[in-house]
Amino acid sequence: MHILLINPNSTASMTEQALASALRVKQPGTRVTATNPTDTPASIEGGADEAMAVPGMLSQIRKGEAEGVDAYVIACFDDPGLHAAREVARGPVIGICQAAVQVAMTISRRFSVITTLPRSIPIIEDLVVSYGANHHCRNVRAIDLPVLALEEDPLQAERLLANEIERAKKEDRAEAIVLGCAGMSVLCDRLSAATGVPVIDGVTAAVKFAEALVGAGYATSKANAYDFPRIKGPHGRQPISAEV
Amino acid sequence: MHILLINPNSTASMTEQALASALRVKQPGTRVTATNPTDTPASIEGGADEAMAVPGMLSQIRKGEAEGVDAYVIACFDDPGLHAAREVARGPVIGICQAAVQVAMTISRRFSVITTLPRSIPIIEDLVVSYGANHHCRNVRAIDLPVLALEEDPLQAERLLANEIERAKKEDRAEAIVLGCAGMSVLCDRLSAATGVPVIDGVTAAVKFAEALVGAGYATSKANAYDFPRIKGPHGRQPISAEV
Amino acid sequence: MHILLINPNSTASMTEQALASALRVKQPGTRVTATNPTDTPASIEGGADEAMAVPGMLSQIRKGEAEGVDAYVIACFDDPGLHAAREVARGPVIGICQAAVQVAMTISRRFSVITTLPRSIPIIEDLVVSYGANHHCRNVRAIDLPVLALEEDPLQAERLLANEIERAKKEDRAEAIVLGCAGMSVLCDRLSAATGVPVIDGVTAAVKFAEALVGAGYATSKANAYDFPRIKGPHGRQPISAEV
Amino acid sequence: MHILLINPNSTASMTEQALASALRVKQPGTRVTATNPTDTPASIEGGADEAMAVPGMLSQIRKGEAEGVDAYVIACFDDPGLHAAREVARGPVIGICQAAVQVAMTISRRFSVITTLPRSIPIIEDLVVSYGANHHCRNVRAIDLPVLALEEDPLQAERLLANEIERAKKEDRAEAIVLGCAGMSVLCDRLSAATGVPVIDGVTAAVKFAEALVGAGYATSKANAYDFPRIKGPHGRQPISAEV
Amino acid sequence: MHILLINPNSTASMTEQALASALRVKQPGTRVTATNPTDTPASIEGGADEAMAVPGMLSQIRKGEAEGVDAYVIACFDDPGLHAAREVARGPVIGICQAAVQVAMTISRRFSVITTLPRSIPIIEDLVVSYGANHHCRNVRAIDLPVLALEEDPLQAERLLANEIERAKKEDRAEAIVLGCAGMSVLCDRLSAATGVPVIDGVTAAVKFAEALVGAGYATSKANAYDFPRIKGPHGRQPISAEV
Amino acid sequence: MHILLINPNSTASMTEQALASALRVKQPGTRVTATNPTDTPASIEGGADEAMAVPGMLSQIRKGEAEGVDAYVIACFDDPGLHAAREVARGPVIGICQAAVQVAMTISRRFSVITTLPRSIPIIEDLVVSYGANHHCRNVRAIDLPVLALEEDPLQAERLLANEIERAKKEDRAEAIVLGCAGMSVLCDRLSAATGVPVIDGVTAAVKFAEALVGAGYATSKANAYDFPRIKGPHGRQPISAEV
Repeated sequence: MHILLINPNSTASMTEQALASALRVKQPGTRVTATNPTDTPASIEGGADEAMAVPGMLSQIRKGEAEGVDAYVIACFDDPGLHAAREVARGPVIGICQAAVQVAMTISRRFSVITTLPRSIPIIEDLVVSYGANHHCRNVRAIDLPVLALEEDPLQAERLLANEIERAKKEDRAEAIVLGCAGMSVLCDRLSAATGVPVIDGVTAAVKFAEALVGAGYATSKANAYDFPRIKGPHGRQPISAEV
Repeated sequence: MHILLINPNSTASMTEQALASALRVKQPGTRVTATNPTDTPASIEGGADEAMAVPGMLSQIRKGEAEGVDAYVIACFDDPGLHAAREVARGPVIGICQAAVQVAMTISRRFSVITTLPRSIPIIEDLVVSYGANHHCRNVRAIDLPVLALEEDPLQAERLLANEIERAKKEDRAEAIVLGCAGMSVLCDRLSAATGVPVIDGVTAAVKFAEALVGAGYATSKANAYDFPRIKGPHGRQPISAEV
Repeated sequence: MHILLINPNSTASMTEQALASALRVKQPGTRVTATNPTDTPASIEGGADEAMAVPGMLSQIRKGEAEGVDAYVIACFDDPGLHAAREVARGPVIGICQAAVQVAMTISRRFSVITTLPRSIPIIEDLVVSYGANHHCRNVRAIDLPVLALEEDPLQAERLLANEIERAKKEDRAEAIVLGCAGMSVLCDRLSAATGVPVIDGVTAAVKFAEALVGAGYATSKANAYDFPRIKGPHGRQPISAEV
Repeated sequence: MHILLINPNSTASMTEQALASALRVKQPGTRVTATNPTDTPASIEGGADEAMAVPGMLSQIRKGEAEGVDAYVIACFDDPGLHAAREVARGPVIGICQAAVQVAMTISRRFSVITTLPRSIPIIEDLVVSYGANHHCRNVRAIDLPVLALEEDPLQAERLLANEIERAKKEDRAEAIVLGCAGMSVLCDRLSAATGVPVIDGVTAAVKFAEALVGAGYATSKANAYDFPRIKGPHGRQPISAEV
Repeated sequence: MHILLINPNSTASMTEQALASALRVKQPGTRVTATNPTDTPASIEGGADEAMAVPGMLSQIRKGEAEGVDAYVIACFDDPGLHAAREVARGPVIGICQAAVQVAMTISRRFSVITTLPRSIPIIEDLVVSYGANHHCRNVRAIDLPVLALEEDPLQAERLLANEIERAKKEDRAEAIVLGCAGMSVLCDRLSAATGVPVIDGVTAAVKFAEALVGAGYATSKANAYDFPRIKGPHGRQPISAEV
Repeated sequence: MHILLINPNSTASMTEQALASALRVKQPGTRVTATNPTDTPASIEGGADEAMAVPGMLSQIRKGEAEGVDAYVIACFDDPGLHAAREVARGPVIGICQAAVQVAMTISRRFSVITTLPRSIPIIEDLVVSYGANHHCRNVRAIDLPVLALEEDPLQAERLLANEIERAKKEDRAEAIVLGCAGMSVLCDRLSAATGVPVIDGVTAAVKFAEALVGAGYATSKANAYDFPRIKGPHGRQPISAEV
């Protein structure tokens, strides 16, 4: 089984970190590769960043389809372009936010999310609603640190996160924590050990769900909404599907 | 006041039709111009088409910002990239789906939407939910005609739409109809006359709401979610905001 | 175009203030007049006040219909009798709460409302839910000042509102503020300047939306729910429609 | 215990019918009286009718308060002025729609409502949502008969209702039926016998709930929203509370 | 009329206390008896306790059916096995949480619940959502006291509850309080007197609703979901219905 | 890794069928065992059957805990006792309904469920709501066949299911189908091949999710709601936790 993990931003070190998280949990028989577009924002911090990242991400999926990839993981917590990606791919496409939320709904009754910048809070809240978890998610919190600062000063990030988890336990009665950024992946186990509640990393969750779906034989439905993009007539640029 | 109407797809004839709808209703003192990217899909029929259209649309907004545009109308019923566009623009950005839904909630208690292809139904349903109209919207219907066919055979489109409106009146008890594609704009008045219920065109609604918001002095909030895109460090490509 | 602005309470100075707000933003070609019933409560502070105000307000609409009014604005933030008014009128009827909420959903992702008395909070919360904005509205707050006190001590009102806006920014991460009382209309611009977030006045929003809807040619649907009131048989008093 | 049943419309024969339904089920120690305003519409068929009926209904409650009434039942299925009435009354105020919905949620998992005119369907749907029963209520149906026609031709009404109940059983899998008009009260038992499902009459339900609440010692909370209407200053007309 | 009050846990003193609450409010003509299974947990503090209590509770209902009981009250605030009980019984089955919530929605616009242990908060929140009261319920709070400690130190319980009610009034703007445990029943009146807001006890509410429903002639619908349990073929154990 | 699959009913042939489905998809390193209580109903067809099955199921989990089981799958589509089971277990507990719904939300935008008896429809609808999938699930359908009849006449079951899937595709625009009974597990692949849409079996989905969660290192949160059942004092029977 070949899972392609796509970091939609162009920061290769984040791609490597996500890959490391994936390799740590994958089954022996699974091949996980990771990639990132090179012409996208260095980090995804809002809707415009998302929008600029998605075409490059779809190109990676298109390449993956040619190579026979079985499932894709989109390693950005905003799940940018998730529906679009599912139109392009044959196999399952897993967003790390959706996967983490599904884990949180399975191992706890109430959870909180902790992300980087406050501007991402409404984006994540809307995702949580669309994934049907609004009654389960107590709060979406932010440590007010830019995405790239997670790598630059991991100790500060860990301290801020540990602090915010303690507040979520106390103020939200959170029973589990979802880390709201792919770049927080490596901190997961230590935070869980330090705080005594399950701390869920979306990359880990998504890779395992991708294995599960492929292992069960499930592929993206091509009936209606997730059908391949339609090929248009002679005007303008062909949509991505034309090349599939 | 300068309103820029952006058709996110690359079909110039659709841009012209939307412009004509706008010019028909604009106030004397309003200047409406229209544009479309040239490197985007010929029509927007699903999430992948949307994704491929948004960066080009954001470029048009960036140009508009340099020219002092006061408000933007995104002339595609999926409201692609709406949140992203609001991050990039200073003035209000109006999506034609959101505007049409707000009109429908004001002049009726229950309405139905009629779009082109069935694959767009879940997309529009999710938009309707996110705009808070799910209790007001009885149904999202489709006439099963590709977007570009609206122009190729307008008589057939009108016949199919009139038929579907009658079904919506009878089966949904729809009190008003929202046309779910910018390309249906010109048919609005004749359909309303033929069926006896208000038929709402999003382009018309959005242009008038843009005038209203600018006239009232409202601009996009730059506090938090719709703040300008953040400028990143040295890695990778600068996000669109870097050039604003 | 003739827009009739109706203040449902009987305090003429509030009617004048609302008219001033309307005149400040209306288009050159729009005629705005304002009126209030004289037999209604001096202010609307709860459901019973609303109920006592609505018949007088409907009489004003009935008169307006005879004079060819094109659209109505109900200048009370509880939107009292909004559905009833739409049954009586041919043109659009805009409630200032609904209009303000629609503006807030367009120029921000999360907003808070600030009203006068705490007893109005559940009323406004229920309106926000019915307008589909519950995921966008973070909080409904009150400065605990009666409606008429806004006029009696405008400086105090402004100070309390400015204070509450700062709390909404900090505690709610509100990106825009909706002022939850027609009597706060004049304070809008100064509060926005002082606090740095858009502060939305429902009267302003509603007048501009009324212009927009009439300008677009939209009228209230007379199919089903908003049809004119039915004329009854010989028993009892004729409903308002009998005289239309 | 004294329960005052108020028919908000001015048709005395409907008041008598509702009273008969109440007397049939009341406890021995309960005194039920019934009244209707004389200056209100002959039937309530839409929001404007509701609005014209509420001030007269509130006057009856004010009189009831002077006479020491313990609880009120508003005998119109739109629950007109329910929140206003609760502000004016000390004891509980029961709306027949809310009471019937609460019964339906207790004795079945899924129910349908059948009312008179189609124009009332959205009104009732919105009530059902506000009472939290939207997941339990499968459908709101109408037999397309004006309210007063129920009395004029009760056999036709019964036939139409029986027919619609059978459709609700088959098409909605309705497990119970709520009759959506006070004027259908007398048909309840025969319809239940004929169709084999519980048929719930709001007047019956509300009278019994009024007895229950008074018997348990519960009164309307006067903290915040349902506090008595505020007495205003010297301007304009005193609100109803001034006379309480 | 015979109402059987079932305390699902095995602590007889709690059964007696609930019975006392019931006897205090029942009508003269009503016979209330109370029982508890002897093989169930001593208190219900979470989902596993609920699960272990339900079969014993269903046995009590089965016995009640044989004795001609008219209605049942389940005297545990988690409403354990409520749907199951309604399948087994002919008459209405009232859960004390659902009844208390229905009272709270009738006599206030916003209420809070106060329960014993924090672990029960998500359970009660989910019940509140399923009863359609999530917009009316501001908060579910806990005093962090085990159920059995309510009896062991009633003075401490009362002090903690009074304190928490004051916080709910201030922080939640709660207009009424629902006590979230059958064991708090006796404290209701004193807490209401001390805090000045209605304090609602589910046992009281449920007994009165049971009287109301039986008095109105309503029984559990046997169409579809609440039909008697099906009798199975030769394999395995007969379900409870086999013996009815 | 040891996964224990528990069929809550007492029909051993259904347990074997579920085990076969599990063995077909499990990873090489996973040990799956299956069991069923012997004192529970022969099939779960409603809430009373569920209630009678849960204590026996919890006993199996208690035994599993003693044997070091890593995760549990509850092989009944009503997910009976799911929250209770999570309190008793250390590892993840997966309900087949929740797992199937999560798969359906990942590989399609709109799906329908097809179950056995109509009486289970409201139960499943409520589960779908509680799992946050109500906007994604178009319909819950039933083939009106008892659970045990699936085994007795598998050809008839397959024919009825294929028929209902075609109706779901046409009437619901369902893009994927969830089979709403563990006993339909073996028919999954053939139905998918015959109808051309993904047909999702909960047993398969749940086993793969159990592997995924254990593989990722996630266990049930013991903070708050899913904490082990509390041990009570001297009165009454000890809850299940007492023996853990």
